[in-house]
Amino acid sequence: MFEFVVESTCSDTSARTGVLFTPHGPIHTPAFMPVGTQATVKTLSPHELKELGAECVLSNTYHLHLRPGSEVIARLGGLHRFMGWDRAIVTDSGGFQVFSLAHLRKINEDGIQFRSHLDGSEHLFSPERVMEIEENLGADIIMAFDECTPYPSTPEYCLQAMDRTHRWAVRCMKAHTRRDQALFGIVQGGVYPELREQSARLLAGLDLPGYGIGGLSVGEPKVLMYSVLEQTVRHMPVSKPRYLMGVGSPEDLFECVARGVDMFDCVLPTRIARNGALFTSTGRMNIRNACYLDDDAPVEEGCRCYTCRHFSRAYLRHLIKSEEVLGLRLTTIHNLHFLLELAARIRAAIPAGTFPSLLADFRAHYTPVDDEARAANRAARAAAFRRSAEI
Amino acid sequence: MFEFVVESTCSDTSARTGVLFTPHGPIHTPAFMPVGTQATVKTLSPHELKELGAECVLSNTYHLHLRPGSEVIARLGGLHRFMGWDRAIVTDSGGFQVFSLAHLRKINEDGIQFRSHLDGSEHLFSPERVMEIEENLGADIIMAFDECTPYPSTPEYCLQAMDRTHRWAVRCMKAHTRRDQALFGIVQGGVYPELREQSARLLAGLDLPGYGIGGLSVGEPKVLMYSVLEQTVRHMPVSKPRYLMGVGSPEDLFECVARGVDMFDCVLPTRIARNGALFTSTGRMNIRNACYLDDDAPVEEGCRCYTCRHFSRAYLRHLIKSEEVLGLRLTTIHNLHFLLELAARIRAAIPAGTFPSLLADFRAHYTPVDDEARAANRAARAAAFRRSAEI
Repeated sequence: MFEFVVESTCSDTSARTGVLFTPHGPIHTPAFMPVGTQATVKTLSPHELKELGAECVLSNTYHLHLRPGSEVIARLGGLHRFMGWDRAIVTDSGGFQVFSLAHLRKINEDGIQFRSHLDGSEHLFSPERVMEIEENLGADIIMAFDECTPYPSTPEYCLQAMDRTHRWAVRCMKAHTRRDQALFGIVQGGVYPELREQSARLLAGLDLPGYGIGGLSVGEPKVLMYSVLEQTVRHMPVSKPRYLMGVGSPEDLFECVARGVDMFDCVLPTRIARNGALFTSTGRMNIRNACYLDDDAPVEEGCRCYTCRHFSRAYLRHLIKSEEVLGLRLTTIHNLHFLLELAARIRAAIPAGTFPSLLADFRAHYTPVDDEARAANRAARAAAFRRSAEI
Repeated sequence: MFEFVVESTCSDTSARTGVLFTPHGPIHTPAFMPVGTQATVKTLSPHELKELGAECVLSNTYHLHLRPGSEVIARLGGLHRFMGWDRAIVTDSGGFQVFSLAHLRKINEDGIQFRSHLDGSEHLFSPERVMEIEENLGADIIMAFDECTPYPSTPEYCLQAMDRTHRWAVRCMKAHTRRDQALFGIVQGGVYPELREQSARLLAGLDLPGYGIGGLSVGEPKVLMYSVLEQTVRHMPVSKPRYLMGVGSPEDLFECVARGVDMFDCVLPTRIARNGALFTSTGRMNIRNACYLDDDAPVEEGCRCYTCRHFSRAYLRHLIKSEEVLGLRLTTIHNLHFLLELAARIRAAIPAGTFPSLLADFRAHYTPVDDEARAANRAARAAAFRRSAEI
């Protein structure tokens, strides 16, 4: 169970392909995992996700603990049965979410005390409690409880949070009992290469079946993220899957695969879809734009997704402008197809030796959203989350 | 084109089965037609609608005229192509919607002047303009522009509105040019049997390919609606399809088929679904109730809809409580399946001679929502619509 086989490597970059075997089927890496925060990948049915080729989804411990409660899901046979998804599932540990609650939480060595953003009720997440919740949920891969640091943070604070994350990882290992779940540790250390190295080496010593890389894409510039990532991955074990948490734009998929990452999850494709932003081979298209009013073409010529095979830009624009649910579904399908297809092309290119040229081609044609726009989006989302959490 | 064949009749009631042939396939009657107000049956894809067995959907002229505009849809090849639906479509005339705008509209002999509830812009719907819009949309069945009366209304006002509706029907016939569309007249007359008889007879004389029955289910008690319906249908031509507009609860389907109605449309199944109300063989179930928190059963044992085959009440409750789109989809699918399946069972029972016992059985087991609750719901919706229209 949970064997990870590296199947091919790229001679020019750190890219590699592999398979991670789970009780609910294989995950072919590099893998993009859609996010199903509340036991559903927003707007989609599990059957649509399968058709899109997703082999694993991520679900959120924090949200499911609050609603409907992990004990309820356990009584109903676990998360797979609850949400009708028979492929692999990862659950995060809730560390990132409770951390984001800002003034609603208190961190100490035992764990994090926080108030629910739904009803203000008090909760404690400790490594032991999080293991209990994740065992109730029953995902194939469960993440250790960690303390995430924002950007910017002082090296002192990052060191302190990292050390605690390590102690919590050991407590998670002791508390974890289910043999049909793989417990992944999470490498922290902010943007400080020496801390990242320490974290990677220490966690490697615990011989866990896989490792997350946490605390990246939390506000730092992309170039800094890529360089920290490089200096992290080189100290991580070659034989274990490396999962870069919360990252997954098209450009990040390429750049981080090139730096040795095997697994990704990100709300980006599904979240921007609901705002009408669509991935194309040259960058993002906003379908709300007036120029698409009577544009009969599909979002992208040649795209084989359900949306592009059946509907025009004009219809998508109409649906999104009219706030129709079908619009959210169709844009979500397109964006997930785009990323899952990109991952599949990357997986094919690596053993074929064509990954470097695929990467060069992508860099030449795709215009990513710049750091400034990203920062503005992040600030707006954080403010919205804080408002929703102001009870 | 538009041949209507009555295939069987019930010896004890006025129920009958038939087929209405359209350029986009047959409509087997009695038929329930899901409502796709803004060129989409809310939350569903056209492929799901097909799987549910819908042969025809209704779309709204008022909404599509305002957004994206019927000329845009015409340029894109018409409504079928725009929304990816290759079966039959009915468009209403917008008469009911502009009427509902209350203080935002002025009625005179030429037509109805109104302001858009979206942006306050001024518009005129006349019989000629409505025919132009409905021809742009290109539905198979288009409804004549009518003046709908609320309940209660004086006989004087109902007579005046009915006479105008008749004059407008003649103007619609003169203005209508497309041979691939069937223009249906609309019988009005409020709750006054003598007016209903006049209206049915006059419109029958115009020899239109089918007739709508308008102005019912607008606030009058159910028993009154059923009795007015009986006294309307008996004066309508036997050889033409009879379409009861805006009506379609399970009990109405049964009671009105028994009174000779062939076609129904109603937002009820899709609208209440989005509030978590589900049809079952004994009445409505509200999936938000706490008792379903860890209920592993499907909504209805034995139901063959996608939702009941794959998901528990507990999961549906979780999705609806969490405001997840998948919840809206799954409840919508169940409710439409329920009504379309009911219509199919009715169509099978009539030629088999078992419709009276099916009806008796339904009456014995199904508890409809009572007039009082219905009136409260209607008042709340009307208030919400007026608020949204207060620009």
